[in-house]
Amino acid sequence: MIRVALDAMGADGGSEPLVEGAAQISLEDTPLQVVLVGDKDALTTLLKRHRHDSTRIEFVHAPHHVRMADKPAVTLDRLPDCSILRAAELVAAGGADVLVSAGNTGAVIHAGARSFARLDGVRRVALCAVHPTIEPHGPRGDPFGLMLDVGATLECSAEELAAFARMGSCYSRLVSHIDAPRVALLSNGREATKGTESVVGAHDLLRAKGDLNFTGNIEGLDVPLGTADVVVCEGFIGNIVLKMLEGVADAALALARHAHAQKLRYRLGLALLSGGLRRVRELTDWKQYGGAPILGFDYPVIKAHGRSNARAIRNALRLATKTVQHKLVDELKKTLAP
Amino acid sequence: MIRVALDAMGADGGSEPLVEGAAQISLEDTPLQVVLVGDKDALTTLLKRHRHDSTRIEFVHAPHHVRMADKPAVTLDRLPDCSILRAAELVAAGGADVLVSAGNTGAVIHAGARSFARLDGVRRVALCAVHPTIEPHGPRGDPFGLMLDVGATLECSAEELAAFARMGSCYSRLVSHIDAPRVALLSNGREATKGTESVVGAHDLLRAKGDLNFTGNIEGLDVPLGTADVVVCEGFIGNIVLKMLEGVADAALALARHAHAQKLRYRLGLALLSGGLRRVRELTDWKQYGGAPILGFDYPVIKAHGRSNARAIRNALRLATKTVQHKLVDELKKTLAP
Repeated sequence: MIRVALDAMGADGGSEPLVEGAAQISLEDTPLQVVLVGDKDALTTLLKRHRHDSTRIEFVHAPHHVRMADKPAVTLDRLPDCSILRAAELVAAGGADVLVSAGNTGAVIHAGARSFARLDGVRRVALCAVHPTIEPHGPRGDPFGLMLDVGATLECSAEELAAFARMGSCYSRLVSHIDAPRVALLSNGREATKGTESVVGAHDLLRAKGDLNFTGNIEGLDVPLGTADVVVCEGFIGNIVLKMLEGVADAALALARHAHAQKLRYRLGLALLSGGLRRVRELTDWKQYGGAPILGFDYPVIKAHGRSNARAIRNALRLATKTVQHKLVDELKKTLAP
Repeated sequence: MIRVALDAMGADGGSEPLVEGAAQISLEDTPLQVVLVGDKDALTTLLKRHRHDSTRIEFVHAPHHVRMADKPAVTLDRLPDCSILRAAELVAAGGADVLVSAGNTGAVIHAGARSFARLDGVRRVALCAVHPTIEPHGPRGDPFGLMLDVGATLECSAEELAAFARMGSCYSRLVSHIDAPRVALLSNGREATKGTESVVGAHDLLRAKGDLNFTGNIEGLDVPLGTADVVVCEGFIGNIVLKMLEGVADAALALARHAHAQKLRYRLGLALLSGGLRRVRELTDWKQYGGAPILGFDYPVIKAHGRSNARAIRNALRLATKTVQHKLVDELKKTLAP
């Protein structure tokens, strides 16, 4: 049985979608035990509202939690018994195999840093995200690419970017079942000499070692295309790019509407298309995907979107199970070995 | 009469669109004299194909030119009589008031650096670009926002970003006729403390001086929305963001097509919409806009897109005329005064 510590507090929609997701998955035929970490009374009350298998859900009480607007480091200092710290400590103590949270991202990273060690060769951890692409990825035609870092480490050295490339490749191979994921550095041009000092340095390091399917630099245009399976960049850039992608499908749509609201045939076209556009929005909706890992700790951590619904939480719990089944951390250690 | 030095060589489509654009504008009622700089025989032959006013077009011969794939610095060393250097030298010597090129961007920046001085308070120049936004800008409802830097200076200090903010605001005020352009720093969060060291430092500098309509930090989402009139960032990020925007409208469209190619009503919807989508593509098509300035030299420089057609060149020449009429360089000096 795989034990998942689920930080059940502090998501945008409160604890309801988290508890509902846990309840749903407890009825599925998966080798999964969920430990709900948070206000035990409140969580128990919520759980009663949903059909579930009570033998597969446990509780660990944590009286406090970090809110989305809280400053992570100071809040963790102030609330040592908050749900995310308790959940991370549970994993570190062997009481669970993997940590899942839909709460304050900074708090998840800080709680990991306080409770876990970093893997050898990892100086900074990376927050991953998935983004929709035109080209499918891997044998299952996954419509998402992986990007890292998207905000854990704003500025990176060449060595740090190279470690991100290795970890992203390993995760993509295990979880997306891509044999040799195409790994690329996001830069301002395809040539090896293009980019900031750290990007040029990382390019040289990855070329020299030659252990990955490193396809070189890609440009901004390639991100929505999906030319690479794993896009590597500094957290500052990844964060900006990811948030732009979140908004840009709506932007294109609004532009089309604005330009042609007056013409009947365009209005008609938009009406007929609305189902298709909803599907585009679904594809660009992170809630559907469930989550993405924080890579670099000696325990697996899945960060679900703060706005996750029950279905997204269920997907995040499945993803967490996979990271344990596929021995993600052991594989990361092998990948990072000098 | 305003004299524009037009580097008439080295664009993606050769000299034809450049000469045609110059021919067209020579017939317009604008106070403009175009100096075509390049292979005089070839340009003369091309010009004969288009109706023009020969009293308003002159030639300065330059036997060589920089190609798109050439390394800028070494090629300028090797070809001191290339068209972009000759054109910049013509401006520096007083033979023309403003420089326009649709050639190799790096070569234009290097030629400027060799021929012009930088304005006081400017350590690095900025390449601007316009990008389509949902919200219109200024009194004329311009559907484009201004972004700088997009590739001239990959990494910037806080002082350099602050200087870019001042110059971008000044340009937007003069050319887009926006009284107090909303200037923002692109970052990973809205709070003043979010961002890399240089972004946080620039935020403090701009807040402290208080001379601009500085609206603080914006996030990736705000770029397609158009929340700011002037978006300020390091060149590495600006380049990635801009290229992503170029590709992303097509990406959304392909995604919609892919998901629903099988359904008749979606196919029909797309067919009806195709005019509207063409209009979106027009809006995201830089060729329509003409060009954007390189700011920081003591002479005005307009960089037109390499794929400019005759209409785009005509627009770039009009834009160049405006920078002289509105005394852009004098205004930049005032804006940059300590």
